[in-house]
Amino acid sequence: RSAVAGLIGALPEEIYFTSSGTESNNWAVKGACAAQKGKKKIMISSIEHLSVLHPARALARSGYEITYIPVDSRGFADLDFLSDRLDPGYALVSVLAANNEIGTVQPAAEIARIVRAKGLPLHLDCALYPGLLETDVKKWDADFVTISAHHYYGPPGAAALYVKKGARINPLIEGGMQEAGLRGGMHNLAGIAGMSAASLLAVKELKKRQVALSGMSRDIIDRLKNELDEIIITGDLKDRVPGHVSLCVKYIEGESAALYLENDGIAISTGSTCSQFAEKESHVLRAIGISEEDSRGSLLIGAGIFNTMEEAGLLVDKLVAAVGKLRAMSPLWKNKK
Amino acid sequence: RSAVAGLIGALPEEIYFTSSGTESNNWAVKGACAAQKGKKKIMISSIEHLSVLHPARALARSGYEITYIPVDSRGFADLDFLSDRLDPGYALVSVLAANNEIGTVQPAAEIARIVRAKGLPLHLDCALYPGLLETDVKKWDADFVTISAHHYYGPPGAAALYVKKGARINPLIEGGMQEAGLRGGMHNLAGIAGMSAASLLAVKELKKRQVALSGMSRDIIDRLKNELDEIIITGDLKDRVPGHVSLCVKYIEGESAALYLENDGIAISTGSTCSQFAEKESHVLRAIGISEEDSRGSLLIGAGIFNTMEEAGLLVDKLVAAVGKLRAMSPLWKNKK
Repeated sequence: RSAVAGLIGALPEEIYFTSSGTESNNWAVKGACAAQKGKKKIMISSIEHLSVLHPARALARSGYEITYIPVDSRGFADLDFLSDRLDPGYALVSVLAANNEIGTVQPAAEIARIVRAKGLPLHLDCALYPGLLETDVKKWDADFVTISAHHYYGPPGAAALYVKKGARINPLIEGGMQEAGLRGGMHNLAGIAGMSAASLLAVKELKKRQVALSGMSRDIIDRLKNELDEIIITGDLKDRVPGHVSLCVKYIEGESAALYLENDGIAISTGSTCSQFAEKESHVLRAIGISEEDSRGSLLIGAGIFNTMEEAGLLVDKLVAAVGKLRAMSPLWKNKK
Repeated sequence: RSAVAGLIGALPEEIYFTSSGTESNNWAVKGACAAQKGKKKIMISSIEHLSVLHPARALARSGYEITYIPVDSRGFADLDFLSDRLDPGYALVSVLAANNEIGTVQPAAEIARIVRAKGLPLHLDCALYPGLLETDVKKWDADFVTISAHHYYGPPGAAALYVKKGARINPLIEGGMQEAGLRGGMHNLAGIAGMSAASLLAVKELKKRQVALSGMSRDIIDRLKNELDEIIITGDLKDRVPGHVSLCVKYIEGESAALYLENDGIAISTGSTCSQFAEKESHVLRAIGISEEDSRGSLLIGAGIFNTMEEAGLLVDKLVAAVGKLRAMSPLWKNKK
């Protein structure tokens, strides 16, 4: 618990182990709202992970009102909207601090400052932070923060919710005295041990990982922009999760490009692994103004700490070739030319 | 998934992995009730595990009515009450099929028959079944069944809820397409692999374990009855979880006896590990008519597959000696004599 607390600047007793980031998000949204009697409004960004969006919709079915914070074309939350619209009737504000689909890193400190100034509870989904971005829950003064071990090379099935001392939250999984009675159930001991080891390593290697991964994603993005016409790099180029590359390649199906690369032993994705079977179209791409047509060419590339610059280069070679082949078969591309 | 399904007579696609029996119970109670629109009553036994009792109380705070099925002095549910009181207004019946505190094994088939005849959904908490008792969800035709790996020597943090094909349940943890969209979140892969291995072994060794564990618990109970005055063996002697011994020793504190044995390297408990910090007094002991005074001498002894008959004998020797010492210090015991 101390190792995980140290990773995010928390006290050990503020770490509550859960089984996944999805559970942490469900608990934060449902549990924090349930603890605010009489308040029936929740504000979330319009590019949340489904594990916040779906619990919010579940609350909406039981009478809550959801307010969606708009985002600009790079995915940044509209801070004026947040500031103008927040009122004491809100039970919770929940924001995905670093977006999994477009890599955009929100100005968490500013968001926290606005929400704190209104005296309202704030949940930040920081699943993509540890090992990649400086994580300091005390600096933000957030009430609830989600982290998940497998995102920073810990085991799957181990995660935590940071709950600030004194923050009010009802349990989601109850009837056991584990985790101070707030999260019942036998602990996943092996998973927690792995999470602890991964946490120590993530702190130690943060700078090294940031340099290596940012280098790879920057190189991939630069080359793709140079070597391919008619692509949209989604998200922001600067405030971006290290190692994260996301783009829409016009006039192709992302799935076809991913299949081409799979044959070469390279795994890329057409969207979030969590949502690709859930929704026909990405609500994230829609929110940043990508057309339905262009979103069909969506690709998500994640460079990891075990990847090399050579592999990043090979990926671009193969992807450029695959896009060339696919476009050569596309009547739309031919007509356009 | 096939290994776990084989353990309880289910189809692989009816197994939904969760992080604990507590999560499975929370999900069954909250999820099954939420899926029954307009029905605001739930019936549970009066000796449920806290992971069913607390979710039921949470529902009660949001307007549900809980009906508690009374039990007799050995902990058997009142089947006439169940049959008489059930009506179409109930969203769910939930029964702890084998009680962790007193070891009583309910007549699950009869309970299921009554509930099915009324056309109502049934959840059975069978956490103590696999590897100890014949488990056949199809014979019972239950809608939801909880199992948990660590109870049958699998890893902690791996469990499942059986959901009968076509049974209606809302997700508790949502926003991920894992487990057919009914239970989101990254899988605890190592835990599930361990659960699968433990499941195959539990099927193979069922008879052997039943014989060995029943032998030990019967011997322990017989000797304690012979060698100690003024004790109450709780639960039933016949329909009992193999290896399970529970008793109340009058005129002593259970905790003091447990501490004595701990010094000898023997671990016994004063009650359910799940509830001992949760409630001052056991609702289970109260429901079977044990007085508050007698329940202070509550002891729970679990023989496991790695224990020997010699160890069981040593345990009784040490416990009888400890009770003798403790009673010698008790003014109440002296006055009584």
